[in-house]
Order: sequence, then C-alpha cells, then structure tokens
Amino acid sequence: MISLVFLLSFTTITSEASLAPSDQIFQYIDAHQHEYVQRLREWVAIESDSSNLLKRQDLIEMIHLAEERIKYLGGTVELAELGVQELHNGSTPRLPPVILAELKKDPKKHTVCFYGHLDVQPARLEDGWASEPYNLTEKDGSLYGRGTSDDKGQILAVLNAVEALQQYELPVNVKFLLEAMEEVGSPGLLKLVEERNSTFFSDVDYIVITDSSWISNKPSITYGTRGNSYFLIEVECAKKDLHSGTFGGIVPEATSDLIYLLSTLVDSSGHILIPGIYDAVAPLTEKEKKLYEKIEWDFKKLKDTFGIRNFTYNTKEELLMRKSRYPSLSIHGIEGAFSAPGTKTVIPARVIGKFSIRLVPHMDRSVVTKQVMDHLNKKFAERNSPNHIEITNVQASKPWLSDTDEPLYLAGRKAIEKVFHTEADLTRIGGTIPIVSHFQDVTGKSIMLLGIGGPDDAPHGQNEKINRYNFIEGTKLYAAFLQELAST
Amino acid sequence: MISLVFLLSFTTITSEASLAPSDQIFQYIDAHQHEYVQRLREWVAIESDSSNLLKRQDLIEMIHLAEERIKYLGGTVELAELGVQELHNGSTPRLPPVILAELKKDPKKHTVCFYGHLDVQPARLEDGWASEPYNLTEKDGSLYGRGTSDDKGQILAVLNAVEALQQYELPVNVKFLLEAMEEVGSPGLLKLVEERNSTFFSDVDYIVITDSSWISNKPSITYGTRGNSYFLIEVECAKKDLHSGTFGGIVPEATSDLIYLLSTLVDSSGHILIPGIYDAVAPLTEKEKKLYEKIEWDFKKLKDTFGIRNFTYNTKEELLMRKSRYPSLSIHGIEGAFSAPGTKTVIPARVIGKFSIRLVPHMDRSVVTKQVMDHLNKKFAERNSPNHIEITNVQASKPWLSDTDEPLYLAGRKAIEKVFHTEADLTRIGGTIPIVSHFQDVTGKSIMLLGIGGPDDAPHGQNEKINRYNFIEGTKLYAAFLQELAST
Repeated sequence: MISLVFLLSFTTITSEASLAPSDQIFQYIDAHQHEYVQRLREWVAIESDSSNLLKRQDLIEMIHLAEERIKYLGGTVELAELGVQELHNGSTPRLPPVILAELKKDPKKHTVCFYGHLDVQPARLEDGWASEPYNLTEKDGSLYGRGTSDDKGQILAVLNAVEALQQYELPVNVKFLLEAMEEVGSPGLLKLVEERNSTFFSDVDYIVITDSSWISNKPSITYGTRGNSYFLIEVECAKKDLHSGTFGGIVPEATSDLIYLLSTLVDSSGHILIPGIYDAVAPLTEKEKKLYEKIEWDFKKLKDTFGIRNFTYNTKEELLMRKSRYPSLSIHGIEGAFSAPGTKTVIPARVIGKFSIRLVPHMDRSVVTKQVMDHLNKKFAERNSPNHIEITNVQASKPWLSDTDEPLYLAGRKAIEKVFHTEADLTRIGGTIPIVSHFQDVTGKSIMLLGIGGPDDAPHGQNEKINRYNFIEGTKLYAAFLQELAST
Repeated sequence: MISLVFLLSFTTITSEASLAPSDQIFQYIDAHQHEYVQRLREWVAIESDSSNLLKRQDLIEMIHLAEERIKYLGGTVELAELGVQELHNGSTPRLPPVILAELKKDPKKHTVCFYGHLDVQPARLEDGWASEPYNLTEKDGSLYGRGTSDDKGQILAVLNAVEALQQYELPVNVKFLLEAMEEVGSPGLLKLVEERNSTFFSDVDYIVITDSSWISNKPSITYGTRGNSYFLIEVECAKKDLHSGTFGGIVPEATSDLIYLLSTLVDSSGHILIPGIYDAVAPLTEKEKKLYEKIEWDFKKLKDTFGIRNFTYNTKEELLMRKSRYPSLSIHGIEGAFSAPGTKTVIPARVIGKFSIRLVPHMDRSVVTKQVMDHLNKKFAERNSPNHIEITNVQASKPWLSDTDEPLYLAGRKAIEKVFHTEADLTRIGGTIPIVSHFQDVTGKSIMLLGIGGPDDAPHGQNEKINRYNFIEGTKLYAAFLQELAST
C-alpha cells in the first residue's frame, strides 16, 4: 500500500522534471515526509546489531535493502567483499559486504562520496526503552528506534534528498560507501579504502560523513577531531603475586611504583605535566576564537545528564576549546592489580597502567611518545626502584582538521543558511573517528562531517531517536548542499 | 593388612607401659614410622577440599576418620554442629561439624588444646603435580600429597605423639579442636569458640596451633603475627562513565584524584608517609634484636622462588623485622577503573582504591584509622578537586604477640632442644591468622604456634610435601613438648 502511494506521487512529479528551484524541492520533501518515515521504519525494523554474531544475516539483509533503494534511484551498486573476521575465539565469520555505489557519472560535474553505516548498537526493550527499539515509534515529534539517528536515518535522508533532486536534476555525481560493521571497529574497511583509492575514489572530489550530530539544536558542521595516543606502563616487582602479610615491607611494590608514575602525568585541573607536551599545539587565532563564541552549547545540561560533579572550567568557550582543540590526558585504569569487589591482600607482581593523550594539530605522535618516555624514565630513575618498567605506545590516531573556508564547507554553510536561516556552528569534536583521518591519509580528499542528528538523540543509549524536524529539514539540508556543491 | 601389623606392634609395646623416658618414647616413634606414614596416606586419600562444594561429604568423612583415631586412643569426641553456610548464590549447605575432643581428664594436670584443620586447598594432577595429589608418594625422603604439611600431617603427628606417650603415661590432659573449613575462612568457628569458652575451654591452660611451619630447616616457634587494617578510597566524578574523547580535558577525573591520593601513602622504600603512623610501634629491645640475629633464614632463596627483583633491605635481620615487627602498607588495586586487557578510552565515573596497613604492637585500629582519614582528607583538600571522596576502614584484625618466656614457650623451646639438639628459632610472621587473635581475645589463654612443616613444603602450591624427617622428628617434638609441659 505504501509503495503504491509512493509510485503514484513519483510518477506525478517526474513529468515536471526540469530545473531545480529550492522551494519546489523543499515542498516535494515536505509532501513526501510520510514515505520517508515509512522507509525509516522498514530500515529500523532490521536488527542490524553488528556486535551480535547471531545477527550477521540481518546485516546482510540491511545491506541489500540499501542496495535496493540505491538501484531504485538508478544507481549502480557493487557489493565489495571484505573476507572474514578473525575473532578471539578462533572463529572466522564472513564479514558483511560494503556498498560501493554510484549515481550519475558526468565528468563535467563534481563528485561527492557519502560515507555512512547501516549497523547499529545493541538494544533491548528491557534495557529501559519506552518502546520496542526495532519498531519505529513516533511521540511528541520524535521518531524513536535504534538507528534512527546513528546512522540509518542520516543515510536515508541523503537518499531521499537525491530522490527529491532527481525530480528535476541531480546536480552533482553522488557516490556512497556504506558499511555494516562500524560499531565494532570497521574490520577490513581501511584496507578496502586503500585498494579502491585509484579506482572508486579516483574521481571523488569530496567526502561527506553523515555519521555525526549537532552539539545543540542549531545545525553544525564538524571540521576537526582530536587524535589519540595510548600508552601502557608495565611495572614488575616479582614473577608471582605476593601475599602482603608475608612480603609487605620487604618488597618495593610494582603497584606503588606505577601509582607514583601515573601521579606525575596530570594535575587536578587537567593540565598535563609532561615537559614540552604543549609546544606543538597550534596557537589560537582570533578567527578560531570567534567560532567558539558563536557556538550554541548547553554545557550545564550535559553536566546534569552525566551527573558530573563539576567541570574544570566555567565558560562555554574555554570548555569547548579544552575538549576539542587542546590535548588532554586520561588515566583509564590498571591491569594486573586487584580490581574485583572485596578485600584481597595481594601484592601484584606485574601491573600495567593505561593512559592516553588526545592529540591536536600539530602534535606529532613520535615526538609525543618521546616526551612521554623521557618524562617517565626520568621520574622512575629519580625514584630509585629496583623494579623493571616498560613503557609502550600501543596505538595512535592522528588529529584531523579542515579549513572551513574550503569549497566543501562553503557549500555546507550556505545550505544550512538556506534551510535553517541561521549561520552554521562550526565545531570540532574531542574524540577520534579513525575513518576520517584514514580517508584523509589515503585519498587526500577534502572531507566534512555533515550530520543531521540532534544533541540529545542518545545514539548509543536507550530510547535513541531522531526528531521528525531534523529528519525532514535534514533531508532538505542534504538537497540544498548538493545544489550548492554544484555551483562551487 | 596394614592395620594388622599395627595392632600386633601396639600389643607388643603396651605390655611394657610404665614411666616415660624420652629415649624409649623416641625409639617407639622411630619403630612405628611406617604405620604413621600409612595413616597419613589414608588421611591424604580423602579429598577434603573445602573450596569445592561437591566435596562436602569428603569433609565429613575426614572428620569421622579423625574422630575414629581419637576414640581409638581412648578420647571422647563431640561433633559440634556449626549450622549452615550462607553462600553468595543464596544456597545454604550444611557446614561440616567440628571435633571437640578430650584425652585424659586429670584435674591435677595441665590441659593443652591443639587446634588444627583437616581440610585442604584444591589440587589436581594437571595443575603441575609430579604425582597424584591425593595418593601419598614418597620420593627422596619427602612425602608428597595434598595436606601432608597443611595440616593433616601435623595433626597426625600430635595424635601419634599422644599414642607413643600412652605406652607409658600421657603426662597432661590433651584436647583437640579440629575443623574442616579453615581454607575457606572457618565460617561459624569463631562463634563456636565464644559459645564454648565457659565449657570446653574453661579448663584449658594452653592453646597450641599446629597450622604453622618453620622458616628454615631449623625448628622454629611462632610467637607473634601482624594484624591488618583494610581501607577503601572511593572517588566519584560523575554518575556515568565518560568517553575520554568527549570529556577529556573538561572533567576533573576521579582516577586522577585517586592516583594522587594513593601516591601520598608510601615511598619507594616502603616507608609509610602517613603522619604519626609509627608513633605507637613498640620499640625494638636488645633482647628482641638478638632473636633476629639467631634466626636461620635464606632470603636469597625466597627471592629466587618468587622472582623478586630486589628487597627493600639487604640484611636478614632488617628484612625479618620489616616483614614482621614493623607496619607496612600495600596498595592492592583499583575497582571501577578499566582493568581488562586492551585499550578502552574510558574516564571511569567512580573508582575505589584499595590498600591495607599491617598492624603491629601497639598500634590501635581506631588511632590508625583516624591518622589515615586525616592524612587523606588533608591531601584531598590541598588538591582542590570538586569530586566526592569517601574513605572507609572495611575490616581490621589485631596483631598478636606472646612472651617467649611464658611456660608454654619454655616447654616448646626445651622440647626442640631435646629432639633437635639446637635452640629454637623464635619467629613472628607478617601475616594475620584471625583464629589466633580470636582465641586470645575470647579465651585469654596462652597461645603458641608449634608446627613441624618445612620452609619449602608448598602448602598451597603444587607438589605439597612434608619431609619424612620432619614428620617423624616432629612427632618426637610433640611428645617431648607434652612431657615438658607436664613439668612446668
């Protein structure tokens, strides 16, 4: 029944296809919002939880559903195989394929590639959902369901925007890279990007990532992320755990050494105590400073949501900068020490402290690693302990930063002004999205994060939702963006 | 067959019963060592692993076997019920009964009560045993098997000593308190001791604990243990765990505060930094100092066994004192932080640091608790963190110390000289044996730890053993001790 309605209206409009006045595109989108919500309902109904091995078939079904939609819009789709996943238990399940799709191929036009993911986080009614997580439920203007915001709803909004534009003319070439394993670390994807760099990506001018949300109810564009460098400090005082009755007082304890080393890393205000660590941090310009002033952000609400005792700073601007444009150091925990409830009287033989430093432009991983090693080795030498230490930098990802005056960003900003009648908030996020810096490193393309999710969508939590407003106006935003991009 | 041999030899000797010259007692013991080993074999064969719920019937069987032996020696036995055990999973299995036994009841004679346990630690061949753990195996003078040293062998040695003395005359009244749940914390036992204080314990003059071993191949008597006071420091920065990307740099982290507090507790040499903590420590006397000089102790071997990098001190005397007569502070670990393998980028919302202080005479639990609280509260105030902390003293046990010139000790020392032709090493152990300070608090009796296990018996490890030498000469030691006790 729904499909029938859709086909009828589709047929009606295509007869008028010609130029693409924004108003008419927007009217078309408004008129079809019921269908868009129905499509989202169908997508949400598939339990594409990539963390659950029993749901691998649902992932494949979800890929096929998206494939079908793209083909319906006239696109070509390749389902690229990623091979098998190597799990800790030795099993090697097949990875779901990745969609590499293409709509329109006009060498005179720009090509933009959208990246998004079709898998979701786990969700169960009994976790505290007010409605069935895989049954789209509308209430008070919000569309509740797992994946509505992260990331099915955002991908669908792009596809719906393409469809609306097609009633007249799709103004640019559009590609899609859609995967179904993002929530579990995108195994195999980075390799695929490398393999397809000289083919699929060769004619791509811009990469837009939908997997992003606004930090307030005002639309925002993300132009930077922090990187991260993860360190382990291993300290060993013996080959076997010791009893604190028998050995307490005669053994220089590994945990005590580790606690000492960890205590030299950061002060109570979050200032990192490693010499030289701030040297390479890009200075704050007046232009950038102004961006923070403009951004709408309710940090008091965030404080309440997470029950945070207090922040390290009192102003919106300072907090935004601290969480996105300055490095930070977090101590995550200790492996090998006693961590269970109860009161064990152990002297752990070997403990591993874990901390990481969020990297920002223009910090260099290897310079930071040297600074960390030098600092810890010096402090340990001062302590004069007979124990053995080993400091390792186990993983690192680079920070990513774009210029908000690049054509891609100008198109995004103009589109936001057109649809929302407001200037876009230009934001940087404190976390790391490995695929972003990987796209940048491998393809060298201009990249932007343009999402339509709201600040309170709870992407990984209970009662995930997207507002109908965000979903429909967001569809207009993607349509306007593609039009703006055509004229750059 | 074995029983027959035993009965024949028994019959032969009893006909000579009269006075009790040590030489003849010792000869009797030497002549019967084959039977003693056979009895130990029977006891070891019962898999009385108290940690295994499926072995509860074996515990009861073991209790009955010991009961049978005591009755055979003419003793009376009460099997005192302890009721049920309350397990975490809600089940309430019946506890094995405790043996309260009595041999001889002459009001003109001293009464000594031996405490020991008939349960054992788990043991499986595949854990790395060279022979079946429940099948006594003799090799190169050692009797291998679970429980040979801890504590079946030591209890049997006392019973065998009683039997040898009975060929002439048992010179003192002997009682036994034997339990089968020691390795899992003796549930219900403390209550029983309180209940029987005015009955079973009313005519007891001395309590001797067999569950002890020598710190070298030279016989030793233990006259002191340290106590322990266990602390938790809870720090909370939020109600939910936070992502270090999103919140790193804007939240004063609980783990960072905790690490700082833990770092103020102890220095690299093991010196406790809490003001006043050493004030109440009993000063070292010349007499006590000499004891440490005499003790035989191979700390280099201990270092090798546990793969310890280095000790905090270089001399035997200093190490012995540090591990037994001075307090020590050990940091055991952190609950609530990331403790698994891998690289999670969490900012834990709430963490609980765990440390304990070994108490020595004359430190007082409540004074120590106040010193710890004052110190940590002061340090935390200096840090100026908005986070919430809570410091708790969750459990404490008192130190225990006896006077080695008490009659009980003089009897033990003389017996060692008689059997081993050497002065006893008088030692204190660094750990806590809760039953000791409980016996002392409740009964007020003179208590001594007189074991016959060797320093390398591996009581809780693979290939537990007792040397045949220790087992047989230890039987002589208990016999000589009972004789010496009669003349005090």
